[in-house]
Amino acid sequence: MSTLKIFCDAPLTPSAMQLLCEGVAPHEIVLPQKPAASVLAKSEFDPAFASVDIAFGQPNLANVRQAEKLRWMQLSSAGYTRYDTPEFRSWAAARGLIVTNSSGVYSEPCAEHVFSLMMARSRRLPEAFKSRDWSGEPAWERLRNACSTLRGQCAVILGFGSIASQLAKMLAPFGMRIIALRRKPRGDEGVEIVTPERLSEAFAAADHVVNILPENADSVRFINAERIAWIKPGAAFYNIGRGATVDQEALLDALRSGHLDSAWLDVASPEPLPEDHPLWAAPNCHITPHIAGGHHDESGTLARHFLENFRRFLAGAPLVDRIM
Amino acid sequence: MSTLKIFCDAPLTPSAMQLLCEGVAPHEIVLPQKPAASVLAKSEFDPAFASVDIAFGQPNLANVRQAEKLRWMQLSSAGYTRYDTPEFRSWAAARGLIVTNSSGVYSEPCAEHVFSLMMARSRRLPEAFKSRDWSGEPAWERLRNACSTLRGQCAVILGFGSIASQLAKMLAPFGMRIIALRRKPRGDEGVEIVTPERLSEAFAAADHVVNILPENADSVRFINAERIAWIKPGAAFYNIGRGATVDQEALLDALRSGHLDSAWLDVASPEPLPEDHPLWAAPNCHITPHIAGGHHDESGTLARHFLENFRRFLAGAPLVDRIM
Repeated sequence: MSTLKIFCDAPLTPSAMQLLCEGVAPHEIVLPQKPAASVLAKSEFDPAFASVDIAFGQPNLANVRQAEKLRWMQLSSAGYTRYDTPEFRSWAAARGLIVTNSSGVYSEPCAEHVFSLMMARSRRLPEAFKSRDWSGEPAWERLRNACSTLRGQCAVILGFGSIASQLAKMLAPFGMRIIALRRKPRGDEGVEIVTPERLSEAFAAADHVVNILPENADSVRFINAERIAWIKPGAAFYNIGRGATVDQEALLDALRSGHLDSAWLDVASPEPLPEDHPLWAAPNCHITPHIAGGHHDESGTLARHFLENFRRFLAGAPLVDRIM
Repeated sequence: MSTLKIFCDAPLTPSAMQLLCEGVAPHEIVLPQKPAASVLAKSEFDPAFASVDIAFGQPNLANVRQAEKLRWMQLSSAGYTRYDTPEFRSWAAARGLIVTNSSGVYSEPCAEHVFSLMMARSRRLPEAFKSRDWSGEPAWERLRNACSTLRGQCAVILGFGSIASQLAKMLAPFGMRIIALRRKPRGDEGVEIVTPERLSEAFAAADHVVNILPENADSVRFINAERIAWIKPGAAFYNIGRGATVDQEALLDALRSGHLDSAWLDVASPEPLPEDHPLWAAPNCHITPHIAGGHHDESGTLARHFLENFRRFLAGAPLVDRIM
């Protein structure tokens, strides 16, 4: 086999880049002229892309369409909104281009992140860390009694993929009712499944609504005023999917009216969320800045995940996390 | 059987008190002249105590010693420092007084609380909620990479009772190494056990040190400068046991030097912790005001837990959560 060229615009740490270069040798890593800002940022057009066989990162779409030798690209993210159009899908299919993502890298930290938010809500951590009231103060009694345990509560998870599946395993010891939204139930989910037609019934039982929806034509503003109204009063809403799947005005209304107890968001629309955006000041709205997938040595995990697929690619075996 | 008198100074909600009265009928609940400040507060001397058969709450010790008919007392807390002296133990034993606590009421919320703190540390929630840096900012990269997953990490739990046992079950899906300190291993703990003599080896492996020790003569200042130095640099320390089990000066030093990554405390010494106490301002020290046991309808759970033991008491069966 001739030497393959792998364009990598994922901004890996030096040690992860070394791992990648050694792992693909004797095949060759081609770096962009301008380094990418982050593992999520869209890359600029790069002339060196024209002659590569494989791409790893967030390839520029104009580059991809012109790269005649390109056979496989692996995204350095789990989300792939910028590639998820009917046009690109059909073009990639016609062209025989394989597209994979890095969801295996992010599903565990994402599941742990949203779980940490559920626990923080349950134990009222943001209030508790600020409190100076101890035993005997009325405010202490209120805080203590506002705490809850997950046992017996109901969580509705929107989107059943690898994150939801891992989250369900983490929630298992707590004896909760877990319902996941899936358009086409397969029967092997291990949790109760609800289809969109019956979502209102699930929402009426929900103490926690966990949104993991990706962004696409069907999901934009899926969480709108009508559906929020279905949710049991006093429930908490979480979003680690994409900000655009939520009508943020409707979410603000539900927080201001008290219909929702709280919102816990790792994503928003737009990102960065402007400093004067009303979500920052909304009651009981807690925002983390799109870090759910982050973890120590993320670069190393990304490189190892790519190398596993590279090994499969060379062997002609099916790739993991294939999306197109 | 003649009607039993049950002194109850636990400050229950009206609905829990109703449940209690109906549950013990035709036996009689005797209330204190002065209501207790909280389920943890020491009660004042009350003349009505002299004629009761059973006490439920935080009975005043002078009352207890003078109550000739008293056969059983159930504490409304899990902790029982004020009763846990050799003198009281031998007096109660000689007198045939049964003492139970409410640990079954608090073990699950306490385990969930400390678990929520472990998750908050893992996902850097206090920093993340304050952050305004998004993708591309160097501070965002640092925060994202400072996040971790529990998988593969090691937790050392000090004190193996019902809270530790529940916590271990909650941690099971995360693939952690879990080591618990126990003076006399029984072999049925389901986790790795370390005795005090070999604690230094366990601490050297610890990413999380979870202190659930009760306060007694052996445990006061158990976490001192020497033992803190054994802990792996960068680990997090949690305390939901009792504040007096920690040398807080040594803890402050370890936070200031950066030897410990962070401290997450639900208890302190004294409580309330004075507003000018240096722990409030110590780096990465996160304090919740003794709310670990709190949960919705705590009063109801306390009443039901007492009634379960009352049923056993009447039947002559062994009581649950017996401590003396």
